[in-house]
Amino acid sequence: MHRYRTHTCGQLRETHAGETVRLSGWVHRVRDHGGLLFIDLRDHYGLTQIVCDPDSPAFKVAEAVRSEWCIKIDGIVKKRTAETVNANLSTGHIEVFAQDIEVLGVAKELPLPVFGEPEYPEDIRLKYRFLDLRRETLHANIVKRTQIIATMRERMTEIGFHEYTTPILTASSPEGARDFLVPSRIHPGKFYALPQAPQQFKQLLMMAGFDRYFQIAPCFRDEDPRADRLPGEFYQLDLEMSFVTQEDVWNTMEPVLRGIFEKFADGKPVSQKFRRIPYDTAIRTYGSDKPDLRNPIEMQAVTEHFAGSGFKVFARMIEADPKAEVWAIPAKTGGSRAFCDRMNSWAQQQGQPGLGYIFWRTENGALEGAGPVAKNIGPERTEAVRQQLGLDDGDAVFFVAGDPAKFYKFAGDARTRVGTDLNLVDKDRFELCWIVDFPFYEWDEETKTLDFAHNPFSMPQGGIEALNNQDPLTIKAYQYDAVCNGFEIASGSIRNQLPETMVKAFELVGRSREDVERDFGGLYRAFQYGAPPHGGMAAGVDRIVMLLCGAQNLREITLFPMNQQAEDLLMGAPSDPTPKALRELHIRLNLPA
Amino acid sequence: MHRYRTHTCGQLRETHAGETVRLSGWVHRVRDHGGLLFIDLRDHYGLTQIVCDPDSPAFKVAEAVRSEWCIKIDGIVKKRTAETVNANLSTGHIEVFAQDIEVLGVAKELPLPVFGEPEYPEDIRLKYRFLDLRRETLHANIVKRTQIIATMRERMTEIGFHEYTTPILTASSPEGARDFLVPSRIHPGKFYALPQAPQQFKQLLMMAGFDRYFQIAPCFRDEDPRADRLPGEFYQLDLEMSFVTQEDVWNTMEPVLRGIFEKFADGKPVSQKFRRIPYDTAIRTYGSDKPDLRNPIEMQAVTEHFAGSGFKVFARMIEADPKAEVWAIPAKTGGSRAFCDRMNSWAQQQGQPGLGYIFWRTENGALEGAGPVAKNIGPERTEAVRQQLGLDDGDAVFFVAGDPAKFYKFAGDARTRVGTDLNLVDKDRFELCWIVDFPFYEWDEETKTLDFAHNPFSMPQGGIEALNNQDPLTIKAYQYDAVCNGFEIASGSIRNQLPETMVKAFELVGRSREDVERDFGGLYRAFQYGAPPHGGMAAGVDRIVMLLCGAQNLREITLFPMNQQAEDLLMGAPSDPTPKALRELHIRLNLPA
Repeated sequence: MHRYRTHTCGQLRETHAGETVRLSGWVHRVRDHGGLLFIDLRDHYGLTQIVCDPDSPAFKVAEAVRSEWCIKIDGIVKKRTAETVNANLSTGHIEVFAQDIEVLGVAKELPLPVFGEPEYPEDIRLKYRFLDLRRETLHANIVKRTQIIATMRERMTEIGFHEYTTPILTASSPEGARDFLVPSRIHPGKFYALPQAPQQFKQLLMMAGFDRYFQIAPCFRDEDPRADRLPGEFYQLDLEMSFVTQEDVWNTMEPVLRGIFEKFADGKPVSQKFRRIPYDTAIRTYGSDKPDLRNPIEMQAVTEHFAGSGFKVFARMIEADPKAEVWAIPAKTGGSRAFCDRMNSWAQQQGQPGLGYIFWRTENGALEGAGPVAKNIGPERTEAVRQQLGLDDGDAVFFVAGDPAKFYKFAGDARTRVGTDLNLVDKDRFELCWIVDFPFYEWDEETKTLDFAHNPFSMPQGGIEALNNQDPLTIKAYQYDAVCNGFEIASGSIRNQLPETMVKAFELVGRSREDVERDFGGLYRAFQYGAPPHGGMAAGVDRIVMLLCGAQNLREITLFPMNQQAEDLLMGAPSDPTPKALRELHIRLNLPA
Repeated sequence: MHRYRTHTCGQLRETHAGETVRLSGWVHRVRDHGGLLFIDLRDHYGLTQIVCDPDSPAFKVAEAVRSEWCIKIDGIVKKRTAETVNANLSTGHIEVFAQDIEVLGVAKELPLPVFGEPEYPEDIRLKYRFLDLRRETLHANIVKRTQIIATMRERMTEIGFHEYTTPILTASSPEGARDFLVPSRIHPGKFYALPQAPQQFKQLLMMAGFDRYFQIAPCFRDEDPRADRLPGEFYQLDLEMSFVTQEDVWNTMEPVLRGIFEKFADGKPVSQKFRRIPYDTAIRTYGSDKPDLRNPIEMQAVTEHFAGSGFKVFARMIEADPKAEVWAIPAKTGGSRAFCDRMNSWAQQQGQPGLGYIFWRTENGALEGAGPVAKNIGPERTEAVRQQLGLDDGDAVFFVAGDPAKFYKFAGDARTRVGTDLNLVDKDRFELCWIVDFPFYEWDEETKTLDFAHNPFSMPQGGIEALNNQDPLTIKAYQYDAVCNGFEIASGSIRNQLPETMVKAFELVGRSREDVERDFGGLYRAFQYGAPPHGGMAAGVDRIVMLLCGAQNLREITLFPMNQQAEDLLMGAPSDPTPKALRELHIRLNLPA
């Protein structure tokens, strides 16, 4: 018989009845039923009920064991009686009558409970993460995470991608977020950086002719704590392809993403075809470039119905500013004054002057648009709005007006609020889409300068011609996101592999050829030697796992997370360096006074 | 037709003859055959011959293209004539007659050649790694590396392991090599460390009940440059299992390792069953704990034949020192004075006084042991040696004598030398074995103290009883290596999960309970809460890939390696930090004067 186990705690069935078995695991719970002791023995694979009667030689030890002790049990498998079968447990048709128990590892008094998983303070949970991870939900999430990542690898390999590992000790990249730096011992005063993403390396791989790269890539950003990002490291499903258009990337990755979601969605429906929504359309329709398509509300511009109307606030706005528009947020089933007033109050809480609305009701057998706005614009315009939006008795519409660039975010929030409050959002599905044609540049209001809207390494649509001749703010990039249920889950682009186009693109944001050569030397140099057209994307592993686990917090899907203060409470990081280490690294502390 | 290609450069066959195709790739070579231009077009998948005749509209461009330009070609597939078929090329039965060529990426004059792969200075190769990687051998090695790693993952997953990713920003570990440190911005004066190995995390995973962990794990050691280790990072196939004995680990991993070797050995034989050789036996038989079993030579002790013999050097040694032994290195087919003298000179070059030997020849129809040693010990003892070692006419034997602890390494080197020089080593095979029962402690001659011989977290054989009662230098550990062709490819152990045994083990090397609590707090704390017996190992990915690629240098199997001065010449790392970054990290440079 094996030293520790003949079966796992999830393995025994009725067919094993009569066998002598050996199990090892943790004491999940002990119950005393009139002298008879019941031990739920737990391991990675499941739970088995152990029975120990006072006549058993194991009884003395069974009386001593406590929650989370690690023990080994020899015993005989017995079929449970019909009344005692537990159908919720894979081993629920049997129990094991203990003949011998060996304690493998005693447990001190537990700092947090494993059985039942009540809420518990986070610092205790992180400090005793090895106990926290024994809890059923977290344990299952972590295993699901490993399976999701394994499936990503499988699917990428199946379609001809190889996984290439890129360096973790590398050069600082002047773009993007703050780098983590690593002092060099051999080169005094010089530092390595941990990669924010393998962007340059994956492009260099294309220059090197590898054609189809992917990597489950660790990425590092020294950012201030944010609710939606753990401090330190995170993972991307990173990929790149040569000789492709953006359609190739979408057509390649859509089945991969859909397949992963379908496999782990627990039967919830997943978009069969991802809609491809231009960025501008997404903003106008959903008020967001990360639209939650589970929310059926689509906004429309209704400016014409307000131009010159009796609703003076809007009418004057439209007259004064050629950029001004009025957007309508249709709210099916929202047609009550109570709901409209609630939305209005919510808008005021958001710092808005209020939220104009119309709602429709049947009054004396006739459909009537009600509310102050309807009164002001009159029945004809009210009816035109209703018809444009396809609304009816019992529905409502909300209006936001002004410069769309300034109000679209609020409009998007209002759309979300309406959809959620009216229960229009089907939570039990995964709606995926591509957002495409992102603007290449954006105007930075603070610095009054042009800047890259997203990835400076993307190819501008229209190429160098567009850069030379077009209003930069109208130039789109071959740049795209994948979005699921309101979250960006991936981002990518076709890259700009033409050195002169790259230099021109940077010149427009005020950076010289010399800047490009200095800051992106590796890549810029590579572009001089037969660079292939290429593109790709990176998907956020953590976000996808969160969606598929239904987790609200990154710590619920991460094995050993740091806390929000970027501390690892379990291992005690960061910690004081030894004076010797500092000397060897040629640095000195420079502590705040 | 697709924007860039209808087929890859490795795809076209006779069956495509007559089709109009589009290919993209790099100009591998251009040849001018009497006005007709031949372009070898290369991509990740292969090579296709493009033909361009002066009548083709593509001819003008074809004349302009140079090596390593990236181009797109439209053309018609034609069957080659029987005389021009190239059987060495998967596309060698066809050629493509170019009708249109588009230049996708021009190449400047190449800093190193891609075609033909002549030797080239390393600094140039590393600086232009994206070109270096286009070379056939390196390209193939890197792809093979990705496939080996993918196979590792596949096989581990198949046998029920999940891949858990452990943190890269973590705490400094006081054991082992020097850590890379990462200054914390949020916690002034404190530092993270990059993991030397996920040892503590994988053990914590077992405490957390995950049962079977593996990871292709990046590991970081800030070591001085060594020929057999790249500076910075390296990869391990790291694994851990709960409720196992060491036999379970061997039985689990032997098929995985064998399978990987068989899959990528290009038909070379691989050990079907790995011998399990105790450490002491390995030292006595091969003079090494990393024996190359392709070398058939097995050493034996022949001390008794020299005790009291006429070979006074050895006889006196044996008399004076009870530890003294004489080891014999049998050398089949080495029976010539010339070879024996050559070995003797080699030994002197190694700083030894010389290498005693006997060789056998037939003299006047009788077998005779020749040489000074034989003369001194006489024919009876000479014959006894010959019979013990099973040697014959034309064979030889070499002797080393003294304290085995001091000479075994030299004896092992001599064994290697004899085997290599006599061509006894079958290079075209992979001989794998387990070295087991490593000593738990060793005596440090320099500091005159007891120290851990290998992993301090291993379980000593005999447990706390042995620690309490046994001479520490005789205690073995449940500690083992996997060895292939003279290289350690993996190392592992059953861990010591019993806190009191751990404390005792450290006390014997002069470290207190407080030391253990402070230095291994995470793990020590975890052991208090129901720790399961567990064990595992870590295999060196880079070493395995090198063996399977037949590569002599780590840079030939690494994508973007640093040079021996720990510099990344391509990306320019390490580099100068900005003053702002240093300020934010609360450090100052402390440069050598």
